[in-house]
Amino acid sequence: MIMDKLDKLVQRIIDFRDARDWKQFHNPKDLALSLVLESGEVMEHFQWKNREEVKEYIKGHKDDVGEELADVLYWVLLMSHDLDIDILNALDKKLKKNEEKYPVEKAKGNHTKYDKL
Amino acid sequence: MIMDKLDKLVQRIIDFRDARDWKQFHNPKDLALSLVLESGEVMEHFQWKNREEVKEYIKGHKDDVGEELADVLYWVLLMSHDLDIDILNALDKKLKKNEEKYPVEKAKGNHTKYDKL
Amino acid sequence: MIMDKLDKLVQRIIDFRDARDWKQFHNPKDLALSLVLESGEVMEHFQWKNREEVKEYIKGHKDDVGEELADVLYWVLLMSHDLDIDILNALDKKLKKNEEKYPVEKAKGNHTKYDKL
Amino acid sequence: MIMDKLDKLVQRIIDFRDARDWKQFHNPKDLALSLVLESGEVMEHFQWKNREEVKEYIKGHKDDVGEELADVLYWVLLMSHDLDIDILNALDKKLKKNEEKYPVEKAKGNHTKYDKL
Repeated sequence: MIMDKLDKLVQRIIDFRDARDWKQFHNPKDLALSLVLESGEVMEHFQWKNREEVKEYIKGHKDDVGEELADVLYWVLLMSHDLDIDILNALDKKLKKNEEKYPVEKAKGNHTKYDKL
Repeated sequence: MIMDKLDKLVQRIIDFRDARDWKQFHNPKDLALSLVLESGEVMEHFQWKNREEVKEYIKGHKDDVGEELADVLYWVLLMSHDLDIDILNALDKKLKKNEEKYPVEKAKGNHTKYDKL
Repeated sequence: MIMDKLDKLVQRIIDFRDARDWKQFHNPKDLALSLVLESGEVMEHFQWKNREEVKEYIKGHKDDVGEELADVLYWVLLMSHDLDIDILNALDKKLKKNEEKYPVEKAKGNHTKYDKL
Repeated sequence: MIMDKLDKLVQRIIDFRDARDWKQFHNPKDLALSLVLESGEVMEHFQWKNREEVKEYIKGHKDDVGEELADVLYWVLLMSHDLDIDILNALDKKLKKNEEKYPVEKAKGNHTKYDKL
């Protein structure tokens, strides 16, 4: 059987967790807290920096930012697994929804929220 | 050329964005804000509910929670793309790091932060 | 002139900041990031703990949690000062609004969001 | 007895809550979620805006931003009350700590985190 890269990573995340007997801690609310806290760590990299400084910072810290983004992805994948959500399918559906909500002709160059368009 | 499912989704996200000329808004700091805000929306589903209520809630709202998780994944993928980060590779590296930081014998059944083990 | 305790704390926050010449960093967006990140630190204290464990934890860590809450208050006060918002007046108005939005007879014992009542 | 403005607001928050029998929902973890989510709502006002746009936005939306900040303060006060934390005292202690951590001569004009100074 051929597993693609993403499936393999999900499998490793679950194996890692189960080897440590951590499923007992992984209720949805606390998993969602992880998602928020790790997203905060991504954001913290850019705090107090203006746009030029952010750009410059990223050049020297791509691996650090990548590691934080990986932490967010980690919890997205673990949570999707535990809730039996096909996350790629969910993303596919969300993209279709966005395409309807933000028609090109109305949304072009305009970041107003769709419900105010 | 064979693109896998995830690559295709990333491509659609970027095409969607570029058709609307939204790249001008997508500086890293504001992308990170999206990540945090969308993670907050996942979390909000579980607020004020105890563990039983969360369980019950998920049964009836799997698609809603899946949509919020998809939103988080959306920003992880878009941000990784823009910062030229290979996110699956970053996750692979992070998993290796975690495996070293939390050795099974010390971490089993124990959710103490690794630096306190 | 009599200043009350809160006014004096606000004054100390501003004096502390200005002595360090930090106003240059304090644009509203980055201040709001601080608010979110410090709130996250409050939340982190309770992660992975069930209700009994949270209760027990607080007994031994009241000062730590108090310090994180103080950090959140710090940014609320600094931001209100910089945006020239009378925060106690804003809270007074918000309480009135809440009293109308959640009438006792409908809201009693029920945490449904007001717009679903 | 003279109660100051802040004490009166805390009392109204608690009276409002208790009249609706909502204390049953107010465990510390969910209160902390509120803190994070409301802080996110403050932050959302500034998303996708550059510094000039933020400035301009605030002129026209001071009351809206004030209301969100009041929501954050609401949860800080309620949580401090429930955990029996004297929040003004905690802030006073935190300010003293900050004054030691960030001595003027080292911190002036420099937003590096204190532990890197």
